[in-house]
Amino acid sequence: MTYNDQGLLPAVVQDRTTGAVLMLAWMDEEALRRTIETRKATYWSRSRRQYWVKGETSGHTQRVHEVRRDCDSDTILLVVDQTGPACHTGEPTCFDVHPPLLSEEDHGPVST
Amino acid sequence: MTYNDQGLLPAVVQDRTTGAVLMLAWMDEEALRRTIETRKATYWSRSRRQYWVKGETSGHTQRVHEVRRDCDSDTILLVVDQTGPACHTGEPTCFDVHPPLLSEEDHGPVST
Repeated sequence: MTYNDQGLLPAVVQDRTTGAVLMLAWMDEEALRRTIETRKATYWSRSRRQYWVKGETSGHTQRVHEVRRDCDSDTILLVVDQTGPACHTGEPTCFDVHPPLLSEEDHGPVST
Repeated sequence: MTYNDQGLLPAVVQDRTTGAVLMLAWMDEEALRRTIETRKATYWSRSRRQYWVKGETSGHTQRVHEVRRDCDSDTILLVVDQTGPACHTGEPTCFDVHPPLLSEEDHGPVST
């Protein structure tokens, strides 16, 4: 794997059942190792500077079904079974919190 | 939006039709502005240090259906209509190139 200058790489988290993109979090080598070993999604919190097992306090765990890396080996994709909402706000995904910056309705039906 | 210390944020790219996570790329404020204005996915290439309209040379374009941001406003999700393979290797997605780091088969059926 190729880590950035802070020793981290982005992990995209996808719901196995719905295909929804749930969130993006950061991993260092140890977080990735723990995730693979335990199948519990484990991230590095950049703000708290500590490891973070998703759902450890909220109960909204992510059981890791599959771990993939991208062509450049600098991004991880986790396919997970999500328990409860993925976002700390209570929304199902972290991308459900704000209205879209752009949506199809902005321009009406597309002529092809 | 909240950009990192290099003025960038990660953009997760998802296929509108299949739901597949296609790739992760980087955007600065101007790349995001161009993407929203043109509906052509436009990134910042960290290696080449220039803007990059996806598919401009390969023809494997991404028409942007929707742009969302996450709860922290430091990650973008693009929902796109992908023409051709998303990965420069010719694979459908950048996560199809390497075998998984972990898959369900590694541990056999899960007992619940």
